[in-house]
Amino acid sequence: MPGNTIGLLFQITTWGESHGPATGAVIDGCPPGIELSETDIQADLDRRRPGTLPSASTRSETDRVQILSGVFEGKTTGTPISLLIPNRDARSDAYDDLRNLFRPGHGDFTYQAKYGIRDHRGGGRASGRETAGRVAAGAVARKVIARAGITVEAWTRELGGVAIRRFLPGAAQASPLRCPDPEAEQEMAARLEAARAAGDTIGGIVEILVEGCPPGLGDPVFGKIDADFASALMGLGTVKGVEIGAGFAAARMSGSACNDPIGPAGFQTNHAGGILAGITSGAPIVIRAACKPIASIACPQETIDVHGRPAVVTVGGRHDVSVIPRIIPVCEAMVAIVLADHLMRQKAIRS
Amino acid sequence: MPGNTIGLLFQITTWGESHGPATGAVIDGCPPGIELSETDIQADLDRRRPGTLPSASTRSETDRVQILSGVFEGKTTGTPISLLIPNRDARSDAYDDLRNLFRPGHGDFTYQAKYGIRDHRGGGRASGRETAGRVAAGAVARKVIARAGITVEAWTRELGGVAIRRFLPGAAQASPLRCPDPEAEQEMAARLEAARAAGDTIGGIVEILVEGCPPGLGDPVFGKIDADFASALMGLGTVKGVEIGAGFAAARMSGSACNDPIGPAGFQTNHAGGILAGITSGAPIVIRAACKPIASIACPQETIDVHGRPAVVTVGGRHDVSVIPRIIPVCEAMVAIVLADHLMRQKAIRS
Amino acid sequence: MPGNTIGLLFQITTWGESHGPATGAVIDGCPPGIELSETDIQADLDRRRPGTLPSASTRSETDRVQILSGVFEGKTTGTPISLLIPNRDARSDAYDDLRNLFRPGHGDFTYQAKYGIRDHRGGGRASGRETAGRVAAGAVARKVIARAGITVEAWTRELGGVAIRRFLPGAAQASPLRCPDPEAEQEMAARLEAARAAGDTIGGIVEILVEGCPPGLGDPVFGKIDADFASALMGLGTVKGVEIGAGFAAARMSGSACNDPIGPAGFQTNHAGGILAGITSGAPIVIRAACKPIASIACPQETIDVHGRPAVVTVGGRHDVSVIPRIIPVCEAMVAIVLADHLMRQKAIRS
Amino acid sequence: MPGNTIGLLFQITTWGESHGPATGAVIDGCPPGIELSETDIQADLDRRRPGTLPSASTRSETDRVQILSGVFEGKTTGTPISLLIPNRDARSDAYDDLRNLFRPGHGDFTYQAKYGIRDHRGGGRASGRETAGRVAAGAVARKVIARAGITVEAWTRELGGVAIRRFLPGAAQASPLRCPDPEAEQEMAARLEAARAAGDTIGGIVEILVEGCPPGLGDPVFGKIDADFASALMGLGTVKGVEIGAGFAAARMSGSACNDPIGPAGFQTNHAGGILAGITSGAPIVIRAACKPIASIACPQETIDVHGRPAVVTVGGRHDVSVIPRIIPVCEAMVAIVLADHLMRQKAIRS
Repeated sequence: MPGNTIGLLFQITTWGESHGPATGAVIDGCPPGIELSETDIQADLDRRRPGTLPSASTRSETDRVQILSGVFEGKTTGTPISLLIPNRDARSDAYDDLRNLFRPGHGDFTYQAKYGIRDHRGGGRASGRETAGRVAAGAVARKVIARAGITVEAWTRELGGVAIRRFLPGAAQASPLRCPDPEAEQEMAARLEAARAAGDTIGGIVEILVEGCPPGLGDPVFGKIDADFASALMGLGTVKGVEIGAGFAAARMSGSACNDPIGPAGFQTNHAGGILAGITSGAPIVIRAACKPIASIACPQETIDVHGRPAVVTVGGRHDVSVIPRIIPVCEAMVAIVLADHLMRQKAIRS
Repeated sequence: MPGNTIGLLFQITTWGESHGPATGAVIDGCPPGIELSETDIQADLDRRRPGTLPSASTRSETDRVQILSGVFEGKTTGTPISLLIPNRDARSDAYDDLRNLFRPGHGDFTYQAKYGIRDHRGGGRASGRETAGRVAAGAVARKVIARAGITVEAWTRELGGVAIRRFLPGAAQASPLRCPDPEAEQEMAARLEAARAAGDTIGGIVEILVEGCPPGLGDPVFGKIDADFASALMGLGTVKGVEIGAGFAAARMSGSACNDPIGPAGFQTNHAGGILAGITSGAPIVIRAACKPIASIACPQETIDVHGRPAVVTVGGRHDVSVIPRIIPVCEAMVAIVLADHLMRQKAIRS
Repeated sequence: MPGNTIGLLFQITTWGESHGPATGAVIDGCPPGIELSETDIQADLDRRRPGTLPSASTRSETDRVQILSGVFEGKTTGTPISLLIPNRDARSDAYDDLRNLFRPGHGDFTYQAKYGIRDHRGGGRASGRETAGRVAAGAVARKVIARAGITVEAWTRELGGVAIRRFLPGAAQASPLRCPDPEAEQEMAARLEAARAAGDTIGGIVEILVEGCPPGLGDPVFGKIDADFASALMGLGTVKGVEIGAGFAAARMSGSACNDPIGPAGFQTNHAGGILAGITSGAPIVIRAACKPIASIACPQETIDVHGRPAVVTVGGRHDVSVIPRIIPVCEAMVAIVLADHLMRQKAIRS
Repeated sequence: MPGNTIGLLFQITTWGESHGPATGAVIDGCPPGIELSETDIQADLDRRRPGTLPSASTRSETDRVQILSGVFEGKTTGTPISLLIPNRDARSDAYDDLRNLFRPGHGDFTYQAKYGIRDHRGGGRASGRETAGRVAAGAVARKVIARAGITVEAWTRELGGVAIRRFLPGAAQASPLRCPDPEAEQEMAARLEAARAAGDTIGGIVEILVEGCPPGLGDPVFGKIDADFASALMGLGTVKGVEIGAGFAAARMSGSACNDPIGPAGFQTNHAGGILAGITSGAPIVIRAACKPIASIACPQETIDVHGRPAVVTVGGRHDVSVIPRIIPVCEAMVAIVLADHLMRQKAIRS
């Protein structure tokens, strides 16, 4: 797997650049007999769409997914599902000035170093647009895990330094910032607005909850399911940290405080975040991903050009102020993909 | 890769249980012509050995590695290198009481749920002993990356809530706790002693630094090198969080503060931790891993037995008070293995 | 790799059904900087097109490939290359009678047994149309290996029981049946015509020659390059046998006759077919693939329906009389793909 | 998978050289709860042992397998099974003359070309001894498939040009040459004796029969089960050709003769050899592997040394006259390993 494929049995390959004709994904290994339509997938894609929020880009990404294979008369057949999402409204000219410059915080420099060539338009392969294919594939993964009663939901836990103080069930879904704490959300929105006004961007933390997951998913020792979650999320360009359960806070706990006592009704606390020794315990799975601020800022920045000469770059174009909340369905998709894969792996050994 | 193998080109498979006859690793894909002896590997294994520290188990693990294949007249041949480390001094009887109990914080419950059978002795496959094979393989990986001028070094950044305040070059290597700040180390030692006295354990944070890494290692989009680091470290049972560069702190930064300006001499700051868009930038790579407190504590804990009945478990035996500092060479090994793999992957496309 | 992906470093995933909207392939791992256009690929696709031969189907397959990603300003960028070939002229109605019947010699029965569902139209995923994606990907593989001076060429060695008696250099390319022996070709054409008149089909043998391959490609022991050639060719539905060098004839030779003596100028004979212990020797690589007769015949055949009841099936539609010569560019593509992969694998360990 | 690993879910990695301290295999992915002892494995290893036949080497290979992990109280636990077979009676001195010579028909030249270094003693990694690990792993695979009612049996179909004329059930197992036709066996034995007297060797054909295999195993399109069989068998250094069902003869048949009619009781003929479109049909699976004569012959042969200078080599040592019948349990092992893998893959999607 040279790098654009994830999964052992439920396997996703994405392809596509920001300003090419299309992006897409191939899902190989999807079990047969699952009802699947473009509408099912579109719903998740729409959640990734820029809205009318202060955080949003004004690029109009009305992504329309096409299913090109693997579905017959409304059901998956077991053969590869090819998903295609045409790129629209890509104004490549806006990137002409960037052809020979490396934008700080972006992959421009590293792609050039790696390949000796790069599609500079809109970040090319490193663009957030690549995640459209992930979300589309994740919608299929959700269907696979739903059959086992597993759900995945994510929300904004922190944005621009503002953390949620409480969790109001159902609030995140209805909220523009996918925030389960309405008061915190107001502060977050203010931070977003301030950053936009300053031509700047802000980061945040996404929290992901998996419910209904049976115990036993995950493989020792390099196929631990938390290792796969970490890889799937750190595989998003924006993510700089991942933690499970108590996470970094566990490093400051004593064993007697951190261990989750077990009773006949299950685990009495959940510092483990639903995973022990890399295998799900049946408790809810809790994952957090730290997202850096978007690198494209309107302020002038010091950089170099492809010849190593100093330069100043100002990134124009239409950019979001934060990856949150648009990254949320992407995080859900990645977690669902990992779960679908491990669900099938477990069936292989225990059914 | 069902779960006990890591890497695409430089590939490690480990095997072995805590109280079986031996543990080991097979390295497949090691380039030919590298000088390699058991002594080379032994040095790293010895760093993993319990010492005379307050943190240490009294189990005598004088691991002696044997090279069974892949080396001829002192040099690697390109064929699989089989490493075997006999288990010694394994007192299985001490675990008889635990046969039917699930120790909180351990993989007992999840292994039973996954497989319907488990080797309860000393944690079986989920034991820290499995990491001996990783360290042995990591010693070979170090040799591979050393040819490209890459070094990996890790140290204790935090232990029992005590964080380092300064970094004294060279201090960590000479220090019993692998701590680069002698004053902080004294406080850490006190925390360890207090925990031991209470029959308790403590966690901490390991920091890993990679120097000399060329730009261009890492593959878009699911083979990002930071995703692979995250997976390799989260694949240690003790690790509950991983971050790169500014990590979780990046979530609280603005884009203008977080972006690393680029000058003719290179990156002027390193919030990215040496990785942009999943590809190394040539700047030093900085990774941190949060380690939970060891689950085996001497205090009585609530649990259930294999029949679901409530029980109280007290874990006897000889256990460490913290995985730190013994986990440090393991973290180094995992990072070196990922680097060796990506170094070879890059050679495949650009040489 | 659940089944629709081949290769470790130069990796091809194909997708698509005979009567879906399109078929295609994703190439992951292609080195950057290779000039590539749709025209380059189209040339190979055209060689797979039905011609005006007695062997040809009358379905009009003017396959037009589109490059959707991975190429920028005429050069590969190192990111996945997505190739799409729209399906045209697919008359699904012709297959309505076959919805509930299993055609003998086809995958109808086995797909139904495997998945419990199948796209019966035109053979679905098991159709020869799937090979369009392989040929398109193979065209890219050829470009990769051409940089190392490696060429792949295949021809008809046997058709309908008529074997070539001599090899006229250059004749195969110019010949409608890709036959290097003009006299034999006349007999082959007569067999084809007789079979068509009888509503029947015939099989044959393709021979593939690789020239310019450096020694050293192939990995012990399960990654032997001849094992990969065998897998790649047996992975064509039509192929029932594969042999390398002397092949089955080697089973009837003595060691003293079969061993190829080595002189300062190289191997003096080539019974090994250019491969020793699974690794290329530098001698020309010779492979043969036995193709069964096409299963779709106009004669009535005994079968059962999906309920297990006896039935008689007569396969209408427009079908070829033999997979030869259309399978020839497909065989070349598969061999080129394996070579590209191993060329890159060798670079990873020796550069 | 750099080359020494086979399988996706039931995964085998072998390691070891002919004259190193040991050879072995790691089985990853074996389902838990299967009764397994060293005795189970030893039985298959003993069938690979040189006997008192005219074909046999006089090297005393009393291979004794040790299970080092993955089995607890007599049952598999689901964790990796490490198998170790110490090398005994390895007279390396006998190979001193060969250090700088390339034996015709052997991998000496290609290993040197690939790696620039090689363990010349006894063929190193390319030795037939490597197959001991395969046979040991195959014994475990047999246990896995036996639970599904699948059996694998192989026999000598042809030796030194003598083919069997009839099949006497049960005769092969009792026969020294694993030949199901006692008359043919006498002729085969005479050919062996003649070859031995001449210091020469002979080849032959092994036939493998799989019974009890359910329909539905195998994955389109590159994971076809016949492609995997072909790869697994061609991955034996001695095998130069593989065919399924009618095999090469299918190339000379018409479609009306080759297609297997289907009736309510199943397939009425079996030219397909139990596989259609790469998926098992439920009919018996029939595979043949063509084995070349052993390359080590006592006659002088032309060759070159590592400096490219002409030389004459005479291979001393103790060598078999044919790989048959010792290769037979190896062929069975490889087929069983592929079946175990696909059985698990099918469970993942349909259970």
